[in-house]
Amino acid sequence: MNNQTNYTMLCDFYELSMANGYFQIPMKDRITYFDVFFRHIPDEGGFAIAAGLEQIVHYIQDLHFTEEDIAYLRNHGDFDEGFLEYLRQFQFTGDLWAIPEGTPVFPGEPILTVRAPAVQAQFLETYLLLQLNHQSLIATKANRIVRSADGRPVAEFGSRRAQGASGAILGARASYIAGCSSTACVQADREYGIPAGGTMAHSWVQMFPDEYTAFKTYCELYPNNATLLVDTYNVLRSGVPNAIKVFKEVLLPKGINKCAIRIDSGDLAYLSRKARKMLDDAGLPECKIVASNALDEYLIRDLIQQGAKLDSFGVGERMITAKSDPVFGCVYKLAAIETGDGVIIPKIKVSENAAKITTPHFKKVYRLYDNETGKALADLLCLHDETIDDTKPIELFDPENTWKKKSFTNFTAKNLLVPIFQAGKLVYDLPSIQDIRSYCSNQVELLWDEVKRFENPHHYYVDLSQKLWDIKNDLLEQMRSI
Amino acid sequence: MNNQTNYTMLCDFYELSMANGYFQIPMKDRITYFDVFFRHIPDEGGFAIAAGLEQIVHYIQDLHFTEEDIAYLRNHGDFDEGFLEYLRQFQFTGDLWAIPEGTPVFPGEPILTVRAPAVQAQFLETYLLLQLNHQSLIATKANRIVRSADGRPVAEFGSRRAQGASGAILGARASYIAGCSSTACVQADREYGIPAGGTMAHSWVQMFPDEYTAFKTYCELYPNNATLLVDTYNVLRSGVPNAIKVFKEVLLPKGINKCAIRIDSGDLAYLSRKARKMLDDAGLPECKIVASNALDEYLIRDLIQQGAKLDSFGVGERMITAKSDPVFGCVYKLAAIETGDGVIIPKIKVSENAAKITTPHFKKVYRLYDNETGKALADLLCLHDETIDDTKPIELFDPENTWKKKSFTNFTAKNLLVPIFQAGKLVYDLPSIQDIRSYCSNQVELLWDEVKRFENPHHYYVDLSQKLWDIKNDLLEQMRSI
Repeated sequence: MNNQTNYTMLCDFYELSMANGYFQIPMKDRITYFDVFFRHIPDEGGFAIAAGLEQIVHYIQDLHFTEEDIAYLRNHGDFDEGFLEYLRQFQFTGDLWAIPEGTPVFPGEPILTVRAPAVQAQFLETYLLLQLNHQSLIATKANRIVRSADGRPVAEFGSRRAQGASGAILGARASYIAGCSSTACVQADREYGIPAGGTMAHSWVQMFPDEYTAFKTYCELYPNNATLLVDTYNVLRSGVPNAIKVFKEVLLPKGINKCAIRIDSGDLAYLSRKARKMLDDAGLPECKIVASNALDEYLIRDLIQQGAKLDSFGVGERMITAKSDPVFGCVYKLAAIETGDGVIIPKIKVSENAAKITTPHFKKVYRLYDNETGKALADLLCLHDETIDDTKPIELFDPENTWKKKSFTNFTAKNLLVPIFQAGKLVYDLPSIQDIRSYCSNQVELLWDEVKRFENPHHYYVDLSQKLWDIKNDLLEQMRSI
Repeated sequence: MNNQTNYTMLCDFYELSMANGYFQIPMKDRITYFDVFFRHIPDEGGFAIAAGLEQIVHYIQDLHFTEEDIAYLRNHGDFDEGFLEYLRQFQFTGDLWAIPEGTPVFPGEPILTVRAPAVQAQFLETYLLLQLNHQSLIATKANRIVRSADGRPVAEFGSRRAQGASGAILGARASYIAGCSSTACVQADREYGIPAGGTMAHSWVQMFPDEYTAFKTYCELYPNNATLLVDTYNVLRSGVPNAIKVFKEVLLPKGINKCAIRIDSGDLAYLSRKARKMLDDAGLPECKIVASNALDEYLIRDLIQQGAKLDSFGVGERMITAKSDPVFGCVYKLAAIETGDGVIIPKIKVSENAAKITTPHFKKVYRLYDNETGKALADLLCLHDETIDDTKPIELFDPENTWKKKSFTNFTAKNLLVPIFQAGKLVYDLPSIQDIRSYCSNQVELLWDEVKRFENPHHYYVDLSQKLWDIKNDLLEQMRSI
């Protein structure tokens, strides 16, 4: 569905104003480098999960202005006719590198870099940010929730509370990448292969003369997929007893012991313990208990600590909107331009706020993994033409407190930014959603527990090479003289 | 773009499970009534703004399953072949009433009611909730922000931080309905006629050898639309002086005094006062000052109180995600079913939590307006066949504290729920976006200031008629006996 939609016009108007300007000056073919990076991890977490690249690839491949788009722009005024003519042939002819979907990422490092003529590179800003911000936000939140469930499956239930249709569908995709087991959203399954499931609402129970009849009818229809919602009237006095009765009458005679109840309100810790005992006493130890109702990572962790007898969770609004911190702040900043003869001129954006100063130049992002434990040690940004020799020890320093130094030996350095487009041509094999999900799980596994905890996580270092640090500081000195 | 997309499969899987069940029992043609209502106003506000109906109308008109959809469902298993065959002809044949977009709405009242065969009514749940939740959320937040700006224009700038493409585009639509003056999002203009605009990013300034050249080039290209971003280097030492120089050199000789500067970082109160003085001293009193940078209703109100010299605002992430409270909690609840001979049987959903108990039956929503002041006094839910005679005094009572009573005289009662579909046919003329926006502004004007304030707003009453209250209490009594 989203793949079939053309999002060329989902841009900010200023991108067209600037593009038209570059076209007219003419500066349209000036090669520029833009980085996408973020400054703050949502929920004060220790890391984020990158997601959204696949949709960016489809967007770039499908970039084109229709005659109607061009007519709209002509009516809007202020655009050069030559520029409008140029838009008829508009396509991306540049290069693009990105950190693959599912990778843990950290503030200040480029998760995507564009090298393209100014008129093109500037135009991509809004859609690239929108996709990376949305899907990384949801993936980051979902991964927290999945980890809190400590191995129990988490199903994504949030479509109805999502911020729009693509919020629902791509939110389900992002949450699956980050470890959710399934979704309620049918379109997410249809379009992206995210396993979808779901059984009944309270209204099903209300449609029948009584709860017992509602349950019995359901189990007769779906004996192999009977998850009964037990809180329409009273969980312990009515819901669980009726479920037990029906499971025994309908399922056990068929030899089916796979079944479940879902509790969607009330004290989930108390109710689940009581329900568990009732199910066990009734000879239904295989019956699972599913919980839902405005859950998040903190509530799930608390429920487990309280000894709730819950086998899986359905999580809706707090995951699909990342309710506790619903903005992922990726920005798109000019890092360099090229002169006509291919010399790269680094560019910096200064700010009174030190955290808002950009890191200039065309860069690589290396992740250092310990050869003994396999764990990720630190990330290192360096110039595009620097190479880390991981057969030798390396000394990194904190870019803000440069006297803080640390040496690493016996590590493997991996270049995280992989080529996606070269000269406008896709050079990346998009991995399957299953592969992205497995890769994400493996990469999160390679982070130290100290980085993964919710409270005061360890600050994972993203350092600069000496060369890059020198260039940044020289530019800052020049800026201070303005 | 969204209008061209078919969202039939954007449903929760349980809706298909139940629909298939109703089909097989067979109970598919049992007439059901479902209400959409919410329980909590975001940000502890005094009212919300309903939005999203237009997209629901398009969705319903376009409901259909493709052969590929049906093949997908067949592969997913557990669906009856007769049901899959039935889906080939699936369409909405029921009735639908809704409170028009742009209307202030309150907890507990139906903002939409569906009357349809069970198999259809149940199926609409997710998409109806998704649209109403998303657009009402953004409209409600945007209206707060617009009111805080006290007459100054507010532009929507948030696409890059929106939760997905429809979050950006329909978020821009909702914010425009609620009073924003424009958007940065080109597609929102292209598709919904929301005025879009925008001039330059920091990257434009960085692309030139110096800020002066960047500004001069821009003003020469766009003399009639020159809003210069003045914080790339230093607002007061560089940005404003360069802007003044260029306005004088390029614009004033052409007789143009319409121009603006935008400040996107730093202390907006201080910088704007200083910039205002510099502009005035330079003979540019007509030059406007625009502010942006993570603004919301509280920051804007504070800026104005501090005497900031700001003429308009650009608001991004905090509006497009309703960051402070990003979930609008509309639910879709069964209110009644009909027997074969057309008798309506009210249905209630009980809960331990009194606020979660539904109001049963097929209902009307009246709003009472004072004939002298024109102000909205209270809303009254009553049975579908009750009529308020507004030529006579009426006594309302608080449905929770029934001893609290209030009499109204000299009022006009307006039925807020208007027919949208009758027997599957659209009977509503969708108003233009401009008309919705004007209507919204007028309706908000009819609320007392006490309802509109941000801190501890007055609780606007949504009362029940005596008949409706009696039915609800009878059903509660029956439920207590389960």
